Amino acid sequence: MRLRKKPWAVDLVQAHPESVLDRPDPSKQIDWSQRFSDFSRPLAIEIGSGKGRFIASLAEQHPEMNFVAVELQITAAGIILRSKLEKNLTNLQILCADAVNLDAFFPPHQAEVLYLNFSDPWPKTRHEKRRLTYQTFLEKYQTILTSGGVVEFKTDNAGLFAYSLQSMNNYGVYFDFVSVDLHHEAAKVLAANVETEYEHKFAVQGNPIYALHARFRVK
Amino acid sequence: MRLRKKPWAVDLVQAHPESVLDRPDPSKQIDWSQRFSDFSRPLAIEIGSGKGRFIASLAEQHPEMNFVAVELQITAAGIILRSKLEKNLTNLQILCADAVNLDAFFPPHQAEVLYLNFSDPWPKTRHEKRRLTYQTFLEKYQTILTSGGVVEFKTDNAGLFAYSLQSMNNYGVYFDFVSVDLHHEAAKVLAANVETEYEHKFAVQGNPIYALHARFRVK
Repeated sequence: MRLRKKPWAVDLVQAHPESVLDRPDPSKQIDWSQRFSDFSRPLAIEIGSGKGRFIASLAEQHPEMNFVAVELQITAAGIILRSKLEKNLTNLQILCADAVNLDAFFPPHQAEVLYLNFSDPWPKTRHEKRRLTYQTFLEKYQTILTSGGVVEFKTDNAGLFAYSLQSMNNYGVYFDFVSVDLHHEAAKVLAANVETEYEHKFAVQGNPIYALHARFRVK
Repeated sequence: MRLRKKPWAVDLVQAHPESVLDRPDPSKQIDWSQRFSDFSRPLAIEIGSGKGRFIASLAEQHPEMNFVAVELQITAAGIILRSKLEKNLTNLQILCADAVNLDAFFPPHQAEVLYLNFSDPWPKTRHEKRRLTYQTFLEKYQTILTSGGVVEFKTDNAGLFAYSLQSMNNYGVYFDFVSVDLHHEAAKVLAANVETEYEHKFAVQGNPIYALHARFRVK
């Protein structure tokens, strides 16, 4: 979802280069070991974090892990940064960049989890290549995930979900978990679910939330 | 769905051995060439035909193909038989038998399509092996389908659909089509959809219908 540009957010981002990588040059390697106290900890990346409710909750719950919020909009990045500073989340970094360059920003086979939450559905066929579950993106995810690493995908969009099931299946991944009605799953599943701001709003309206956890097969 | 036993249906089945194979011995091969005018035509099989609205419609629309309705309940078999006789569907045979023996009843790699419509969800984990998309069933489908043959699966049951996506993906099939809301797909998809009696009733209530078309990868 597009946000109105907020000057305070831009100023905040610019005042905190230690927390936000603002549109870095994809041809230069990022030294993540300078940005986390211990980069050998398990790494989780969210692509398209929006206002960051999901990733900030996870970072708070899991101080033993490292988190990177990838978000293209600088206003959204500023909102995530504000949460980070308020909660003193030293294990959360913000990458304000296009996911198309994902494999340039991260070292190979380092991430344990990659989250895709309520991604833009790009419903028109001519925009298929922009969907975050299009084959070229899956190739990038496979490059940055450890063997055994998982893509966790949630959406309320029926078209994007069906597309993603087909795209990921035909790519050859393993499905660990599938739900076509996440908010009516067993208590154990519900307890483990961390809501995004968008998910919360949408589920209250009674619409189904779809979910898929997938692992790349070892080549 | 279990039907009340109707004596007329049992009598009708017994009077028409040329149209219904009533619980045949799985150790004996069925001579399908004696049952269809031309068994070399494309063959489609439905597992669990119920009252047969779906398979009888298809048989009527496609006189150039052969159809077999597999249905365990003799009352249901009698109802399908009545449709067959009324509409003079010479290209439809009824097999009153348990799908567990499917690979004993059909020659290998003959069927082009296998339909699973609103199959029993068997929601309890201890009954997983009875679900028609459990791995042992997929093995049988692969045996009877031609290379390039398709499984077409429809259900209104969220749990069975999620299970089936996972089971079929992890078996290693190719997904040709996925929908989590079949009755709100594009006009082209809707026009091609043949409703079952159960689907019709259920969709009128506004519940989503899930669909998956899958092909086994060539070994």
